[in-house]
Amino acid sequence: MAKKELSIGDKASLTHVFSSEDVEQFAGVSKDTNPIHLDQSVAEKSVFEQRVVHGMAVASLFSGLLGVELPGEGSIYLGQNLSFKAPVFLGVAVTATVEVIEIRKDKSIAKLRTYCTNEAGETVVDGEAIVKFS
Amino acid sequence: MAKKELSIGDKASLTHVFSSEDVEQFAGVSKDTNPIHLDQSVAEKSVFEQRVVHGMAVASLFSGLLGVELPGEGSIYLGQNLSFKAPVFLGVAVTATVEVIEIRKDKSIAKLRTYCTNEAGETVVDGEAIVKFS
Repeated sequence: MAKKELSIGDKASLTHVFSSEDVEQFAGVSKDTNPIHLDQSVAEKSVFEQRVVHGMAVASLFSGLLGVELPGEGSIYLGQNLSFKAPVFLGVAVTATVEVIEIRKDKSIAKLRTYCTNEAGETVVDGEAIVKFS
Repeated sequence: MAKKELSIGDKASLTHVFSSEDVEQFAGVSKDTNPIHLDQSVAEKSVFEQRVVHGMAVASLFSGLLGVELPGEGSIYLGQNLSFKAPVFLGVAVTATVEVIEIRKDKSIAKLRTYCTNEAGETVVDGEAIVKFS
């Protein structure tokens, strides 16, 4: 099946609710065992008053969207800028979106805005990705 | 125990060999099930000729270093820029390093260079992190 050509404004989203298991698995891969993520009693005494999902775990949803949906298979992830704007808590739905904002056809490289919002519509992670598409 | 004050040039590193299980766990959290990461037969036919560790899984080691070592507990991850410069393959040791390059004492914010090298000494991921320290 021929792939649809990439266009400015193309968009893909996914919604995920991070569970305690997600956070533990991410802690295993990243070695980020900071108690703010894993230890309820420490987290309760922190400025956030509860456990916080690792920012990079939330941002990893961009990898999911870019690698599977847009541009999807055959694409190569070249870069990602991230701004962690607000904490993401366990059990709250986060919607990640990637949207094509620039295309360099001569180099088959696209820039996408990448952002996550929470249930209140607040942007919790913002940034841009650079991908090579096939 | 009083924390040592953060200084320019402070550095922390960790070395990790990504396993198939790591890649599968990261695929679970990120939803990045692109076959280049998970499917040996597809990966063999790709430009990389073998399975590639998700770039964001490699970069997640920065979260580990920042959250546990430098600045460690009490720090808040504000931002991360990433350039994925070369693929990381399963079974190959990757060393992640974070190094303090700027400190704004008035805002308790530090910038760190963050990079990963492979066994050949090649830089595979490069970037900078911004953290608030306590």
